[in-house]
Amino acid sequence: MEYFLGCDLGGTNLRAGLVNATSGDVLSLISVPTIAREGHAAVMARMANLLNDIIRDSGIPTHLIRGIGIGAPGALDIQNGRTLRLPNFPGNWPNVPVADTISAATNLPVYLINDVRAITFGEWRFGAGHGANTLACIAIGTGIGGGLILDQKLHLGYGGKAGEVGHTVLDPHGPRCGCGGQGCVETYASGPAIAAMGLKAITQGLNTSIGALVDYDLNRITPKVIYQAAMEGDPVAREIFDRAGQAIGLLAANLIVAVGPDTIVIGGGVAQAGEILLDPIRRTIRNLIKIFSVDEIQVVPARLGNDAGVIGSAMWARERNLLRAPTRVQD
Amino acid sequence: MEYFLGCDLGGTNLRAGLVNATSGDVLSLISVPTIAREGHAAVMARMANLLNDIIRDSGIPTHLIRGIGIGAPGALDIQNGRTLRLPNFPGNWPNVPVADTISAATNLPVYLINDVRAITFGEWRFGAGHGANTLACIAIGTGIGGGLILDQKLHLGYGGKAGEVGHTVLDPHGPRCGCGGQGCVETYASGPAIAAMGLKAITQGLNTSIGALVDYDLNRITPKVIYQAAMEGDPVAREIFDRAGQAIGLLAANLIVAVGPDTIVIGGGVAQAGEILLDPIRRTIRNLIKIFSVDEIQVVPARLGNDAGVIGSAMWARERNLLRAPTRVQD
Repeated sequence: MEYFLGCDLGGTNLRAGLVNATSGDVLSLISVPTIAREGHAAVMARMANLLNDIIRDSGIPTHLIRGIGIGAPGALDIQNGRTLRLPNFPGNWPNVPVADTISAATNLPVYLINDVRAITFGEWRFGAGHGANTLACIAIGTGIGGGLILDQKLHLGYGGKAGEVGHTVLDPHGPRCGCGGQGCVETYASGPAIAAMGLKAITQGLNTSIGALVDYDLNRITPKVIYQAAMEGDPVAREIFDRAGQAIGLLAANLIVAVGPDTIVIGGGVAQAGEILLDPIRRTIRNLIKIFSVDEIQVVPARLGNDAGVIGSAMWARERNLLRAPTRVQD
Repeated sequence: MEYFLGCDLGGTNLRAGLVNATSGDVLSLISVPTIAREGHAAVMARMANLLNDIIRDSGIPTHLIRGIGIGAPGALDIQNGRTLRLPNFPGNWPNVPVADTISAATNLPVYLINDVRAITFGEWRFGAGHGANTLACIAIGTGIGGGLILDQKLHLGYGGKAGEVGHTVLDPHGPRCGCGGQGCVETYASGPAIAAMGLKAITQGLNTSIGALVDYDLNRITPKVIYQAAMEGDPVAREIFDRAGQAIGLLAANLIVAVGPDTIVIGGGVAQAGEILLDPIRRTIRNLIKIFSVDEIQVVPARLGNDAGVIGSAMWARERNLLRAPTRVQD
C-alpha cells in the first residue's frame, strides 16, 4: 500500500489530503485559508505545517507515504518545481521554489502540477474519465481551464502549456478577455460570464425572475442564482445556461476533431448546473461535427467534486515518483 | 541499412517510392494514374505491381526491404489494415482489406495510415518539423487536413480521428462545408475557398487584375492565378491570401492553447504561396494568444513537398514494424 499527499493551492483555500494510491480514497482532508496576501513564504510555511499535520495525524506509517503533489493555478516550471507566474496571487510568485521548500520541510519528494491538469489527472484515474484512453477535461469556474489525457498519459505540451482551452478563441472580434485577448471561450461560458448575462438580462428589462431572487440587488447575481431561476422554469435563465453550453460545445467539438478524445469530462463549479449545461454541450457537438460519427464519444460531468485537485495532484506525485530512484528526495 | 516502401494512394495518382529509413532519401519514385473508377480490386492490383516494380528495379537486396506503408485519404481501421471510408473514391471503399491484399502480393508487412497523418510524420522525421517534440501539421489543399506529433509520437486519437483539423468550426453560422457542417476552416482557407474568393471579387466587380489573368473566364480561376495576381501587386488578391491566412491562424492559435506544440508546419499545395500566407498566420497567432508568450513557437512551411506522403508512410511502416516480431508478415 502506497500513500501520497495532494495539495490544492487555491487563491482562497489551501486543501490537502492523504490519498490511498490504489483506491483513490482520501484519508485525511484539511482545508485552511490561503491568506495569499501574506506572501509566498508565509503561504508555504502554512502549507508545510498543514502537510506535516496530516502525516502525523493520519496514523499511516511514514515509510508508506511516498511523496507530495501540489496543484497550483498558473504557469509552472514543472521540471524544477518552481512557479513561473500565478496571476491570481499577490506578487504573482515569479520563480518561487515551491517543491524544494516543501520538500525540505517535509522530507518528501514534491512535484508541482497545474491545478486543472491535476483535476484532469484525478478524474481520469478515479473519477468520471476512469478507463478512458484519450480524454479532454474542461473545468468551468471563475476561469475555464482544461487538460488532456492522450493515450493514457497526461499531456503537458511545450512548457506545460497544453490545456489552456479557456483561451480558445471563438470569435476574434468577441468580448475582451482577462488574458488580454478577445472572444476567448472564457468570455462566454465562465461563472462571471454567466453572471454577466444575468446582469444584462435584468438591466435590459427582460421578463425574468432572476432579479426578484436577489431583491433586484445586482451585487448578488451569481451563476447559482441564475441556476435557481432556471430550475424554477425561468426561460431567460435557461437560455443563459444554454448559450454557455453552446460555447463549451463549440470548444469541445473543436477539441474532438483535433485531438480525438473518447471522453469529455465537464468539471468546475459551474458544471454543478448539470443537464441544463450538459444538454446544450452534447447537442452542439452533434450539430457541429459531421465529418465523423460522434455517437460513441461520452460527455460526462466530473465526479470527484472538490477532491479532484487533491486526488489528482497526489496521483501525479505517484506518477512522477515512479520515474525517480527511491532514495532521491529531489531531482 | 533498412528500406521501406511508401505509397500515397491519391484520388488522381498513385505515388510510391523506396525510402532509406536512416536518411529519409527516396531512392526510386514512380507515379501512375490511380484510375479509381476501375474499383478497388484494380487499383490494388496496380499498386502491387507498382511496388513490386520498384523493389525489382531498385537494386536493393530484398532482405533489406522491410515493409510497406500506405497513406490513404479517409477513415481507416489501422489495426486491421482496412479502409473504412474513402469519400473521394467511387464506392467509398468500405472495409477493403488493403494491407492483407498488398501484403499477399508483395510478401511484405503492410501498414495503413491516413494520408495527412503520413505527411505529418514525414515532415517531423525528415522535413520542416525535424527535431520538434510536439508538432501540429496543417495541410492546405482541396481540403484541409492535419496531424499531431505529441511528445515525439504520432497521435492517432480515438479511432484514428485526431487531426481532422480542417473541420474545426470557426463560425457555427458560417458557410456550408462539404462535410455537411457549417463554418469549418476548410470553407475559409482551402484551395477551393481561395478560388471562390477570387470568383466573388470578379463577380462583384472589385478592382482586381485576377479576371484579366484568365481572360475573364471564371472556369480558369485557381489559387495559383490568385497567387500570381498577388505577386504582381494586386491588393484584392493579396487580401484573399491574407483572409485565408487569418483563418488558418485562428485554427493554429486554438491548437496552440489546447495542445501546446512547439512547431506548426504548414503544408499542402496552397502553402506554396509562402509568405503571403504564412505572414497572416503568424500575425494572427500573435494577435490572438495573450495568455502566454508565443515567441518561441515556430510556424514553418513544409519542406518535403510531394514526397512527404511517400516518406511519411514508409517511416510509419518502420515505426509499426518495430513493434512486430520480425518473422510475422501480418498481425
